[in-house]
Amino acid sequence: MQVYLDNNATTMVDPLVVKTMTPFFSEIYGNPNSLHKFGTAAHPAISKAIDQVYTALNAADADDIVFTSCATESNNWVLQSIYTDYIVNGDKNHIVTTEVEHPSILATCKFLEDQGVKVTYLPVNEQGIVESHTVASFITDKTALVSIMWASNETGMIFPISEIGEICKTKGVLFHSDAVQAIGKIPVDLQNIHIDFVSMSAHKFHGPKGIGALYIKNSQALTPLLHGGEHMGGRRSGTLNVPLIVGMGKAIELATANIEETSAKIRAKRDKLEDAILELSETFVVGDRDNRTPNTILISIRGVEGEGMLWDLNNGQIGASTGSACASEELEANTVMLAIGADNELAHTGIRLSLSRFTTDEEIDYTINHFKDAVFRLRAISSSFAKQKPTEGGEVQECELHHH
Amino acid sequence: MQVYLDNNATTMVDPLVVKTMTPFFSEIYGNPNSLHKFGTAAHPAISKAIDQVYTALNAADADDIVFTSCATESNNWVLQSIYTDYIVNGDKNHIVTTEVEHPSILATCKFLEDQGVKVTYLPVNEQGIVESHTVASFITDKTALVSIMWASNETGMIFPISEIGEICKTKGVLFHSDAVQAIGKIPVDLQNIHIDFVSMSAHKFHGPKGIGALYIKNSQALTPLLHGGEHMGGRRSGTLNVPLIVGMGKAIELATANIEETSAKIRAKRDKLEDAILELSETFVVGDRDNRTPNTILISIRGVEGEGMLWDLNNGQIGASTGSACASEELEANTVMLAIGADNELAHTGIRLSLSRFTTDEEIDYTINHFKDAVFRLRAISSSFAKQKPTEGGEVQECELHHH
Repeated sequence: MQVYLDNNATTMVDPLVVKTMTPFFSEIYGNPNSLHKFGTAAHPAISKAIDQVYTALNAADADDIVFTSCATESNNWVLQSIYTDYIVNGDKNHIVTTEVEHPSILATCKFLEDQGVKVTYLPVNEQGIVESHTVASFITDKTALVSIMWASNETGMIFPISEIGEICKTKGVLFHSDAVQAIGKIPVDLQNIHIDFVSMSAHKFHGPKGIGALYIKNSQALTPLLHGGEHMGGRRSGTLNVPLIVGMGKAIELATANIEETSAKIRAKRDKLEDAILELSETFVVGDRDNRTPNTILISIRGVEGEGMLWDLNNGQIGASTGSACASEELEANTVMLAIGADNELAHTGIRLSLSRFTTDEEIDYTINHFKDAVFRLRAISSSFAKQKPTEGGEVQECELHHH
Repeated sequence: MQVYLDNNATTMVDPLVVKTMTPFFSEIYGNPNSLHKFGTAAHPAISKAIDQVYTALNAADADDIVFTSCATESNNWVLQSIYTDYIVNGDKNHIVTTEVEHPSILATCKFLEDQGVKVTYLPVNEQGIVESHTVASFITDKTALVSIMWASNETGMIFPISEIGEICKTKGVLFHSDAVQAIGKIPVDLQNIHIDFVSMSAHKFHGPKGIGALYIKNSQALTPLLHGGEHMGGRRSGTLNVPLIVGMGKAIELATANIEETSAKIRAKRDKLEDAILELSETFVVGDRDNRTPNTILISIRGVEGEGMLWDLNNGQIGASTGSACASEELEANTVMLAIGADNELAHTGIRLSLSRFTTDEEIDYTINHFKDAVFRLRAISSSFAKQKPTEGGEVQECELHHH
């Protein structure tokens, strides 16, 4: 059995999405900006995809959705263009974000700091989220933008976006959220929340890689990141990627239709897996279950290095992660776990398990068995776990008891 | 019969390319930056694709190829990052380009002018190309970059890239070329030409939309445009788009294998079509045939509006263009034709026909017949053509004679 539990890194493209995209590779392949039938033939499909996206998010207007190549582009676009429009060509000089954003936010902020921008990286609480009063206290009259993730890629924890939106509205500051880990997992209603910019990526909700979007409230002014032709109202240049746009539309429709029901099913499987692992001694899960995306567990097992656990799970055909895939080749401590106050040893033990609507009960049962065996195997050879246990009285045995 | 003659706008994805990409949507779908088998399973395919790209271009090193979402991104990247690295954080202040570049170059240059950069837009000669001595005479010690297209999207004319490269080398100036219209049409050998940066796009050579690359000679320093994780050596962030990277590799291999032979076949069909149209009176083709990409004709027919011609061709199931698809919804005069000195009336008559390796002899014969009929029909109702002809003595009749 193969079990893919790394859906926060990327997802399988839903076969229905592939089927929807396929005709646009070699049959309806014209450039939609062309005047001939080869190009105009794609117009209805593009319109439908835009409708699917803005309906899924309850955006107010189809023009508020601009397709990009991915959320990394959307995030870079917002930050770099706010810099151009409100800092270089305005009187602001400050951006507020968090310590736990995706690298595409953090690295862009570092780049902007090199250009002279002041960036505040807000700390997270022990739940791994930023509290809204913390945001409020760091906004100044020089703040151009608040950029805070909707849900964490590593912990699944959901940030108080509605409250932060109200604060930004009151203070008259632009508000952006990287919603990559929220869309398709929890309901996202853009008309019920005060927010100016929202980044998203199709490959996180069973759409293709290479297509994302930026929601821009009321089509407000924002200098392009990719300058060029008049595509998408001059906002984002480059030949419209018809197959991937069509795929993203279908994917978001599938991911958000009956989202309450689908989420409940995923949540039940996730909770079963989480409960089973927590039966082991000295295991810790980051963040309250009720305030997490329904598919995610970031779990820490005292005495078991995350990399070793990944290796053992991989041997069992189970794909998991130590955290963000963007940094997973670096063998570093989990940054979110450090941010919430875990000690360095524990921060090296984080394992992220992220389910999808394709995860089956059989896969969960198989994973529970393999995971428990793996913890037993790895603790048996763990120098840190073995060393400390004897002084605390038979914890290794207790672990063994839990395991059986 | 349907005839697609707008291959400079975009191309059909080769069915072999679709076949190569397909397993990477729903089977081998992991994030290649992950440590588990779902991710690492894609590594051999990515390595192969990189090999295919750098072999096709005779680049010196696989690391010199960085995948992007399209040539528009590659072009924006070079220009905006040269601005950051050599103008904002250096002592240069000048970029040299041409009047006839793709909108992704021209619009980015306009944006940089707004930020205070001095940009020289070189004029083209009557052949539609920039001469190398012209380039030489405008480079100053403040010039950060020369950016000149390898071949024109509108005329197919091939620029003297090798000579310009030598000039830039002598003067110690960085040299970039948008080679979107050259790669896959003519041999491009990056080790035989002095050039620092080259932009390319897969969908111009029967690969998928949404994937391109930037060649960066010797992996020289260049600030990213998309900041984020450590993908592609930290040069271009965003989850690696495995299906499209694999598709681009296969597409460039197919497009460049036997390029001399394939080009000769395309050229023969193009020349047949061009000769047939030139039999009509007062028709003009821009640029010498021998110095053009083998698939392209930009033709002007006195008295026939380009838009009207497109409409008539479209009725005959023939897809063509008045020039760049990026501007084709605007009904403006062809900018290249204006640049080479055509009067405004003539510049509204440009029709671009661009073939591919999938264009058949039957399609060419069909197009010749339809095209000639269309010219006859449209000249018969043309106010400008009818008005001027009587004073010149029976040109309308002569046209009719040519037609039969």
